[in-house]
Amino acid sequence: MLIRNVNQTPHEPVQMEGVKDAQIAMMVGGEDGAPNFAMRHIRVASDGFTPRHQHDYEHEVYVVKGQGTVLLEGEEHPIKEGDVILVPANMEHQFKAVSGDVSEEGLTFLCMVPRQSDCGKDVPGS
Amino acid sequence: MLIRNVNQTPHEPVQMEGVKDAQIAMMVGGEDGAPNFAMRHIRVASDGFTPRHQHDYEHEVYVVKGQGTVLLEGEEHPIKEGDVILVPANMEHQFKAVSGDVSEEGLTFLCMVPRQSDCGKDVPGS
Repeated sequence: MLIRNVNQTPHEPVQMEGVKDAQIAMMVGGEDGAPNFAMRHIRVASDGFTPRHQHDYEHEVYVVKGQGTVLLEGEEHPIKEGDVILVPANMEHQFKAVSGDVSEEGLTFLCMVPRQSDCGKDVPGS
Repeated sequence: MLIRNVNQTPHEPVQMEGVKDAQIAMMVGGEDGAPNFAMRHIRVASDGFTPRHQHDYEHEVYVVKGQGTVLLEGEEHPIKEGDVILVPANMEHQFKAVSGDVSEEGLTFLCMVPRQSDCGKDVPGS
């Protein structure tokens, strides 16, 4: 059993090339006994972004609050609170918090990943 | 690629024995090409509840808004916005929206499930 709140869980800066002002907290993962998939909580400050990259496992994302864009299929699509996004395996993607007054709060989202990638390796960050 | 909003996705009553005033929307699942796990969006009206039951696959839950309780390990634990809950496989559980003025909005949460249970069968509702 595990109950923990996103606001009482420490967030750490995302340490990857091509990232700006993004923080992540592991909410449920392998260390908690999650057998199949992991849940991370990510905060991107206004004007910040996650790395533009791709990998051999999917993301399922839920936008908790804020506004921004997601790069998918080569185009940036606006996203907002309550949006759910499936990023297929091997598709380039990037999340950005839109700048401007309307998005001073940045972009906050849940990002779920499988614990095993399609080719059977452990998924990093799960 | 898939982007859809929880507020623009039809919700249907949960049709299970032991449920009261709960609605569910499949946000990402097998029909969308999700290979490993599914995301559902569940709204429980004030005083409502999900079935008290158990099964051979886990839930990962994120409370979007409202207040309520989750039955785990034989006890009801309070839950609120931003809480993340891991319900292990084969553990009895039930989600309730607390009654009273404070929770007129009921309890809204995301419920993620693997697409395969521990014993290799397809997970219902994924």
